[in-house]
Amino acid sequence: MRVLGVDPGLTRCGLGVVEGGGGRLSMVAVGVVRTPAHSDTGERLVFLSDQLDLWLDRFEPEAIALERVYAAEHVPTVMTTAQASAVALLAGARRGLPVVMHTPTEVKASVTGSGRADKAQVTAMVTRILGLAVAPKPADAADALALAICHLWRGAGNDRLALAAASERARLKAVR
Amino acid sequence: MRVLGVDPGLTRCGLGVVEGGGGRLSMVAVGVVRTPAHSDTGERLVFLSDQLDLWLDRFEPEAIALERVYAAEHVPTVMTTAQASAVALLAGARRGLPVVMHTPTEVKASVTGSGRADKAQVTAMVTRILGLAVAPKPADAADALALAICHLWRGAGNDRLALAAASERARLKAVR
Repeated sequence: MRVLGVDPGLTRCGLGVVEGGGGRLSMVAVGVVRTPAHSDTGERLVFLSDQLDLWLDRFEPEAIALERVYAAEHVPTVMTTAQASAVALLAGARRGLPVVMHTPTEVKASVTGSGRADKAQVTAMVTRILGLAVAPKPADAADALALAICHLWRGAGNDRLALAAASERARLKAVR
Repeated sequence: MRVLGVDPGLTRCGLGVVEGGGGRLSMVAVGVVRTPAHSDTGERLVFLSDQLDLWLDRFEPEAIALERVYAAEHVPTVMTTAQASAVALLAGARRGLPVVMHTPTEVKASVTGSGRADKAQVTAMVTRILGLAVAPKPADAADALALAICHLWRGAGNDRLALAAASERARLKAVR
């Protein structure tokens, strides 16, 4: 199974594709989409949306793992982060892909064993788990890979969520 | 000039089209897009996005007036409100339409003369300004019309903003 991890943001949006199967995980691609802070928000969202479509076309993941953003955290950036999340949610839903949210604590616990791990520890474990020669940079790129790893390792729970989401989508379509 | 006001939200998104010219304002259309709270967020965003496209195709506004959402307010709904805003920002930017944000205080001051007016007062003034026989309901619909009115009445300032946004979009395109 192939998963696209998305660490949402407008200034920097981390993207990481991880392939899992037979107990081994490997990195397919990693990158960061950047848009200039002084630009029009709509144009920044369009650029991010276009980039996400390119990644989805090129790497054909079966699911998107998205960081769950809380309103209480990082107040200055929470609005743009929520807007970047919306772009990922839209992109996934338009393709019928499950988009599953994971909290930062779940992701850290999944890759390091501790929900309170710092960024350096997450990057170190992502590098080790994926057998990379060089640590992924910046932190947003490592976080996107960590999200994809978390998603693959929490498999059973995610399958249930994906099924629930698919049944909801079917219900919403029926309601329309 | 024709303006689409958008009071962003996922449970209820108010939409109102107002035509202005020669000092008179008239209502072209008003409505509310609702999506069920129990549904998948991605599907809700897709539905809202499709509805917005329908309104933009049908009423061909020259600008979108969007309520500016603050992270500090209404914490439980701020995330979905920000996501609904992102859909409106994307829809406008994809069509090259200016999307101008107005704060709730600006909107209230614009239609009632007081930035601290309550919802009933806003609805009463929207009804009077547009010469409607019946007050628009629910409040989200009245707020969307108030946003469009505010945009039309703050004309000079908006023109400057629209020009600045257009020049930014041109710059962003050049940077790509």
